[in-house]
Amino acid sequence: MTDARVPTFTKIYEGDLRVPRRQVHLSDGSSVTLYDTSGPYTDPYVETDVRRGLARLREPWVAERRATGAPVTQVACAKQGLVTKEMEFVAVREGVTPEFVRQEVAAGRAIIPANVNHPETEPMIIGRNFLVKINANIGNSAVTSSIEEEVEKMTWATRWGADTIMDLSTGPDIHETREWIIRNSPVPVGTVPIYQALEKVKGRPEALSWEVYRDTLIEQCEQGVDYVTVHAGVRLAYVPLTARRKTGIVSRGGSIMAAWCLAHHRESFLYEHFDEMCELLARYDVSFSLGDGLRPGSIADANDEAQFAELRTLGELTTIARAHDVQVMIEGPGHVPMHKIKENVDLQRELCDDAPFYTLGPLVTDVAPGYDHITSGIGAAMIGWYGTAMLCYVTPKEHLGLPNKDDVKIGVITYKIAAHAADLAKGHPGAQAWDDALSDARFEFRWEDQFDLSLDPDTARGFHDETLPAAPAKTAHFCSMCGPKFCSMRISHDVRRYADEHGLDTKEAIEAGMAEKAAEFTRRGGRVYLPMADEPGSVSP
Amino acid sequence: MTDARVPTFTKIYEGDLRVPRRQVHLSDGSSVTLYDTSGPYTDPYVETDVRRGLARLREPWVAERRATGAPVTQVACAKQGLVTKEMEFVAVREGVTPEFVRQEVAAGRAIIPANVNHPETEPMIIGRNFLVKINANIGNSAVTSSIEEEVEKMTWATRWGADTIMDLSTGPDIHETREWIIRNSPVPVGTVPIYQALEKVKGRPEALSWEVYRDTLIEQCEQGVDYVTVHAGVRLAYVPLTARRKTGIVSRGGSIMAAWCLAHHRESFLYEHFDEMCELLARYDVSFSLGDGLRPGSIADANDEAQFAELRTLGELTTIARAHDVQVMIEGPGHVPMHKIKENVDLQRELCDDAPFYTLGPLVTDVAPGYDHITSGIGAAMIGWYGTAMLCYVTPKEHLGLPNKDDVKIGVITYKIAAHAADLAKGHPGAQAWDDALSDARFEFRWEDQFDLSLDPDTARGFHDETLPAAPAKTAHFCSMCGPKFCSMRISHDVRRYADEHGLDTKEAIEAGMAEKAAEFTRRGGRVYLPMADEPGSVSP
Repeated sequence: MTDARVPTFTKIYEGDLRVPRRQVHLSDGSSVTLYDTSGPYTDPYVETDVRRGLARLREPWVAERRATGAPVTQVACAKQGLVTKEMEFVAVREGVTPEFVRQEVAAGRAIIPANVNHPETEPMIIGRNFLVKINANIGNSAVTSSIEEEVEKMTWATRWGADTIMDLSTGPDIHETREWIIRNSPVPVGTVPIYQALEKVKGRPEALSWEVYRDTLIEQCEQGVDYVTVHAGVRLAYVPLTARRKTGIVSRGGSIMAAWCLAHHRESFLYEHFDEMCELLARYDVSFSLGDGLRPGSIADANDEAQFAELRTLGELTTIARAHDVQVMIEGPGHVPMHKIKENVDLQRELCDDAPFYTLGPLVTDVAPGYDHITSGIGAAMIGWYGTAMLCYVTPKEHLGLPNKDDVKIGVITYKIAAHAADLAKGHPGAQAWDDALSDARFEFRWEDQFDLSLDPDTARGFHDETLPAAPAKTAHFCSMCGPKFCSMRISHDVRRYADEHGLDTKEAIEAGMAEKAAEFTRRGGRVYLPMADEPGSVSP
Repeated sequence: MTDARVPTFTKIYEGDLRVPRRQVHLSDGSSVTLYDTSGPYTDPYVETDVRRGLARLREPWVAERRATGAPVTQVACAKQGLVTKEMEFVAVREGVTPEFVRQEVAAGRAIIPANVNHPETEPMIIGRNFLVKINANIGNSAVTSSIEEEVEKMTWATRWGADTIMDLSTGPDIHETREWIIRNSPVPVGTVPIYQALEKVKGRPEALSWEVYRDTLIEQCEQGVDYVTVHAGVRLAYVPLTARRKTGIVSRGGSIMAAWCLAHHRESFLYEHFDEMCELLARYDVSFSLGDGLRPGSIADANDEAQFAELRTLGELTTIARAHDVQVMIEGPGHVPMHKIKENVDLQRELCDDAPFYTLGPLVTDVAPGYDHITSGIGAAMIGWYGTAMLCYVTPKEHLGLPNKDDVKIGVITYKIAAHAADLAKGHPGAQAWDDALSDARFEFRWEDQFDLSLDPDTARGFHDETLPAAPAKTAHFCSMCGPKFCSMRISHDVRRYADEHGLDTKEAIEAGMAEKAAEFTRRGGRVYLPMADEPGSVSP
């Protein structure tokens, strides 16, 4: 399956486990190898059929573990010193040793969300000592969109770089939509089971019960969901803390549980049955994503008592989940001004003993609906730098409507920017090589290489075409901004050549050499080659 | 002059000096007043004619000062204890006292760029203790675009929030383009005079001279340019420091001066004639924007010796400019990964004695051409928070082509987001009131108020229309994301009502009251009003 809009790269597979990579071929014969989330869809040699689903890559791995009596969950294996195939796979992806992966998983600092019933997934890891990941939300709602559209959004989102997908469907076809998505998803799939539980009780929160919820959870675990958002930290006592907020409770799951707690004047059944839930998830190696049901919904509500009270409870629940050998990550805000972002990460690390943090943005201002991929991309980059392991994307439609395919792409690209900027700032080994390759291509006017190395080659190429449409411009030794006679890059090349010729590459060297050079200049008759002198601009054919 | 795409607001004028403000009328009868940069173009009662130019607002102020023998420049007045009309004007705009403005200008921590020959400008201030400002670059190049287009880009950019404009034209009609822009610009206009000087010597850097440059500077000062970028910090000895960089010199002005220095083996004529330049600028109150000709052009080159060597020189030049009572700000990078941003601000403050910092982005990664408004918007928000006074916008076309009108708008909106996020993080008085008003509107489902309070009402409204086009949806008590039965905001309203009824708004209160409430619940027969129970969603007509 190919697509005219797919970047020009080769899909390669590394090692015995055939870890997929994206190889970008440069015009000088070298290549740059990048992390690839797109699954078999971008391999022209693999035929895919959405009705059949993807190949079941992990099936033999899971079977082998079962045969040897190894534990089910990655964290249980890690604690026993076992390096699973999934750990080996992510080690290749991340460029670290399998033993490092095992240690991080054993410590609970990283998780590998991989339900034994989702063998189609290509394993990935979420943790502060690995590349920052991004999640894309899809899912139809009662208002709009079809199953086919949602599956297409999934393949589209992973093509541009989504590391996981959350299916947030709320319509009547939740089960069927999810089945299509899971069977065709090369990345882990997360859900919020309470949405489906609520459908089962006809949308009446007070009619929910542990039994309805548990059965829904079993259904989803059986189906292959890799991680579930559970708002078990929304305790009865915290609900009134939101009453004086500017924007109350903005998490859907959180508000459902708050409604239940108030209706029954009882402690949350998710909180009270948390142990049982752990036992259930452990049987499938489904990971917890402990939801922040009381996250702030506005700048005014950031870092308030309701939010941090819940976070303390999520810390307690982390300890319980780990005791059951269930993998766990923690969800975070939301809407937070820049100066209050770091506190979120520091407190989460402390209270949740370094469990991976998974945040939604945060948006750093509320005044730009229509641009909340940007208001939140700013916060996402910063919180990623501070140590958040996975960033949940926000599309331009946030607060306004449901994202279409274009919105999904813009959201994913924006969050790849945030995640990669965080990798750079964290000094992740190898992160800068990508930037360097693109900078080299830019400096050397290798336009096609620049486009191919871009997060979105189509857009970069298209923008260049708008100003200089002719094919020769793609090999032009100038930019479309300044034109042929006025290019700083060309002058820089001249500076470099000059320095090379004169052995000048430090301030000391030139200071020492200056007198001599001035004399030499005079000897040479005052003529120095200058690239811009009278040249009309050299456009290669 | 009206425009169908202009937000629904009223233009009002405050005080004797008639300081323009944007008043957004909310559906509850209240209003929010915002800073307005759009000039007379958004006042339906003012007729404008680009061929005639704007009214000469400041002409009597300047004349009055001349008559009383006051000094020409704002900083000289400030040092003498004089509060100018311009200072009074910006005090109203910023919500501070005129005396505070005077002190900041006198100390050199802020500048009011306002050439006596640009009386059309509505005064504004650039300094770390004021609202963060943004600049939009326009200007035709040798490759494309017309004068009319550039003037239209200027009115378009200021309409969306640009605080200053830089005319970076490089084509043959530089003088005429600039004349049109200045006469019609309600915001300060900046230029890079060396571009025009280079045109005068037919594009040959080595043919430049102090005399050609000086004459160009005089021409531009006479015309009304408010601030000029001068790359006087690109000294001969620093040029070789760029030779081993990944991307050499990326500033056009910087590379022209580097070429000149190398060609002549001489110290920069801008550096050597800096005193003379100060005398010249002082006569018109033109401000220096000391250019960072050696700014990094890639992540790899950030914060290197070439960049910081130049910054030290800019610090020396700041001292000289101030001695001449010339206002001065300092330009900054460029391309900087997140963890190296703060060092730029700290060092600039120290070396340039708190002169306002004016940065281009910085881009926090290089892998996303086509999205550099976002890669740089992240850096811009952060550097603004750290203390940068003005942010030079970057459009999606950066590195690829010349921005069109849409690109200008996206660049301006992105940078308004960055600047406002910085104001929030700095705790600027009043900054959060705007967010709060929008959050209130969001919580109360006042959709039209939400749109009108947005940075870009048209886009916000358009996105909402895409999912829920019907007019009743604009008054719907639910979002298009979740649909009528599933709205967390509605549940939050219920929580608030519940807490109000029961006097529960702290954790302690609810813990104390819990036993009683449980009993009451039983007495009431177990029925509690719940908003989502069986309700099909109440769409008001």
